[in-house]
Amino acid sequence: MRQFLVVGHDAPTTADFSLDDLPGAGRLDALCRCVTSALLLSHDIRKDVRVRLVLNDQFTVMFDGSTLQGLNPDERSTAALVRTALDEREEAIGHIPVETSPGVSLVRKGFEATLDDAERDGTVVQLHGEGTPAIETEPPADPVFVLSDHRNFTEEETSFLNDVADKRVSLGPRRLHGNQAITVAHNWLDTDGFAHY
Amino acid sequence: MRQFLVVGHDAPTTADFSLDDLPGAGRLDALCRCVTSALLLSHDIRKDVRVRLVLNDQFTVMFDGSTLQGLNPDERSTAALVRTALDEREEAIGHIPVETSPGVSLVRKGFEATLDDAERDGTVVQLHGEGTPAIETEPPADPVFVLSDHRNFTEEETSFLNDVADKRVSLGPRRLHGNQAITVAHNWLDTDGFAHY
Repeated sequence: MRQFLVVGHDAPTTADFSLDDLPGAGRLDALCRCVTSALLLSHDIRKDVRVRLVLNDQFTVMFDGSTLQGLNPDERSTAALVRTALDEREEAIGHIPVETSPGVSLVRKGFEATLDDAERDGTVVQLHGEGTPAIETEPPADPVFVLSDHRNFTEEETSFLNDVADKRVSLGPRRLHGNQAITVAHNWLDTDGFAHY
Repeated sequence: MRQFLVVGHDAPTTADFSLDDLPGAGRLDALCRCVTSALLLSHDIRKDVRVRLVLNDQFTVMFDGSTLQGLNPDERSTAALVRTALDEREEAIGHIPVETSPGVSLVRKGFEATLDDAERDGTVVQLHGEGTPAIETEPPADPVFVLSDHRNFTEEETSFLNDVADKRVSLGPRRLHGNQAITVAHNWLDTDGFAHY
């Protein structure tokens, strides 16, 4: 399984945002692009992928490719799935997730608890400009990639991530948007073996 | 220079579409993602890039990274730049482009004339599942990538593309969305040299 955890530092935690202004809704547009980049292929879905969006360190929306339905490639309809999830925020009690649409669930957990969940099923790969070039290293079988939105990780987040990361990898010399990094990471995993042709 | 030409088979050719339903506007959402994937880095723009969107074989909107202003990462604001361009469609007379916002221009040209323009400054790379794996081949200095929207190329387009293509490359074993292919192509070019570390 491939997992992606995306931290939305300014992301909404209630459903009262407008789909007409996603950048104004804590840059929800950027988070939605991460979801679709992680889960969608041309006319297909990646069933072996889970994406978790951490919203303002309070809630996490998870998209599970194995059961997901109704995800389209555009930002607006993806944001609508997040809004539907947040509509159920009062149902998310304790640390019990609530499924808000097929394959989409909401849980009242912040960054650290969410990363703990993801890490249980995989190997945390830290994307870092000074990491080993991806092309020179074999990807782990069940990678967990941790990304931030338009902001950098906070000091606390960086420190926690340093502690749990098993591998540090650089995807290239240019600093990419989160969704672009996800696409490149997938390609790294997809083409592993090209080198052995 | 890196160039990307994206064919929008159902794309609008007039400005009377709604920004609230980009998938319904001939999948303009997909074309907009191609524009931002080609031109934007995290907090930066790729100045050495040109993107041309061919709209229904009638008009072409070009985004030139060297002079572009006002491009944001979200789909809606990018679609607004396309709509602004189409607002000037009566000004696009003959084959003379009209600049409709800084770095964005509209010209009354279809696929073949637009590909002729792009090819003048570069080497056409055909992305193809049976091409040489990207990792095994050096990218050309000034590549022109030609992509389609959610539809396949028509027979005529394929035939024309086969004639002008200088190189056939596969980016990986999975079939990607256009914007994902653009991101992977950029990474191929960005990391050329990683193999020589």
